[in-house]
Formats: sequence, structure tokens, C-alpha cells
Amino acid sequence: MSAWLDEVRWNGDGLIPAIAQEAATGQILMVAWMNREALELTAQEGHAVYWSRSRKRLWRKGEESGHRQKVLEIRLDCDEDVILLKVEQIGGIACHTGRHHCFFRVLRGDRWETVEPVLKSPESIYTA
Amino acid sequence: MSAWLDEVRWNGDGLIPAIAQEAATGQILMVAWMNREALELTAQEGHAVYWSRSRKRLWRKGEESGHRQKVLEIRLDCDEDVILLKVEQIGGIACHTGRHHCFFRVLRGDRWETVEPVLKSPESIYTA
Repeated sequence: MSAWLDEVRWNGDGLIPAIAQEAATGQILMVAWMNREALELTAQEGHAVYWSRSRKRLWRKGEESGHRQKVLEIRLDCDEDVILLKVEQIGGIACHTGRHHCFFRVLRGDRWETVEPVLKSPESIYTA
Repeated sequence: MSAWLDEVRWNGDGLIPAIAQEAATGQILMVAWMNREALELTAQEGHAVYWSRSRKRLWRKGEESGHRQKVLEIRLDCDEDVILLKVEQIGGIACHTGRHHCFFRVLRGDRWETVEPVLKSPESIYTA
């Protein structure tokens, strides 16, 4: 039943990085971590479940913000050590900074420039 | 000069994961690791340079296969712990298995199914 989970090469902490990619646009929304249970729940529930390294607990993406990720496809790479999720981002905001996605800084010359707008303030996301 | 490198949150091994995304298609080609020197060289040379954890040395992507990655953009995420490269994949093959990209397995039911063809055999890539 869970042989597919055994094929994943978990790191020393029992985790694997997971990339969430917006299915409709191809944009990379964010990268987070999963443990075995998070990946299994993601497959069962059809919405992204990660492992929060800072809070040391399962984290159903959007559980506070409402910005859940509906999972359309789960992929594994050649080394079995990275997961790729194709998702639909509910609310259009994946990043805790209130931006559409987390990769909002671009290297220009010798500095990182922020090139994506805040769509909703973090305060209003997390106190709603 | 290298203040931008100091803003990167290197992990305990001095590394950061880097996602290579094909600029033209949005496809995620692969994920590899960079140390500080690899990221600096990537920015300087305009082609992807990674850190090989298995060989414990810098690895200019394509140095053996010819499948270099021309880097069009370098991005950093909100937590400063993931790099995103927008690239042009020379030769159209990013994966060492001879496939266009590394995420060629999809979860269908309870097993990983390979859904992408081998474009060129690894033998012919690495002995050419």
C-alpha cells in the first residue's frame, strides 16, 4: 500500500523538499518540506500538507490563511529526493509575505531586487 | 561586492538548493545544490555551476555532457534558503537519465509511473 513512500529518499531528518508549482501558469510558488506523513496526507487529502521545521509539526498549507493548495499532480525526481506538486493556489497568494509566490527577489548586478507586489498585507491575512 | 551572497541563508553544510526552471516553458528541469562559490560563479559566468555533494566538488552543469544551462535570471525566496534559476537548457536534456527533465515520475494511485521518454541514452551522453 505504501511502497511508493518507501521509494522516496528521505534525508537524515526524515524530510524531503517539495516544490509547489502553479499548474495553470508554471510559476514556482514556494518550496517547503515534507515528512512521510505529510506526503501521505497530501496524496490522500488532495491538498498540500507540509512539515514545519520551525514549529515541528504538520502544517496544512492555508490552515490559518485560507490559502490552501489543491494538488493536481505529485511528481518525484530521478534521485528520489525532491517532490514536485502541481497545484491550484486558492486565493492566489502562496507566500506568507502576502505575495503571489515566494521568489520575489531577482539578482540585479550585486543586489537582490524585489520585483513582485504585496497583494495582501500579512497582518490582514493572519488576523482575519 | 559580495553582500548579496551574505544575504543567502546557507544550511549547516554551507549549501542551498537551487531549482533550474526552463525559461521558455516554465518546466522545472532539476534541483541541485550550490555552495557560496558555485552561486558566485553562476552569476559571474552566466551558466549554472552547482556543488556536487557526491563528488564533493564544483560541477559546471554540462561539463561532461555538453548540456550546459545558460542562466537568464537568478531569484531568491522569502526565507533566503532556496535559489531559483531561469535557464535555457542547451541540448534540451537536463537529466542524467537522458530525459528532458528530472521529474519524470508521476504518482498514479499507489505507484510512481514514468511518463517522460529518454531522449538520448546516458551511455551516448557520457561517452561522447
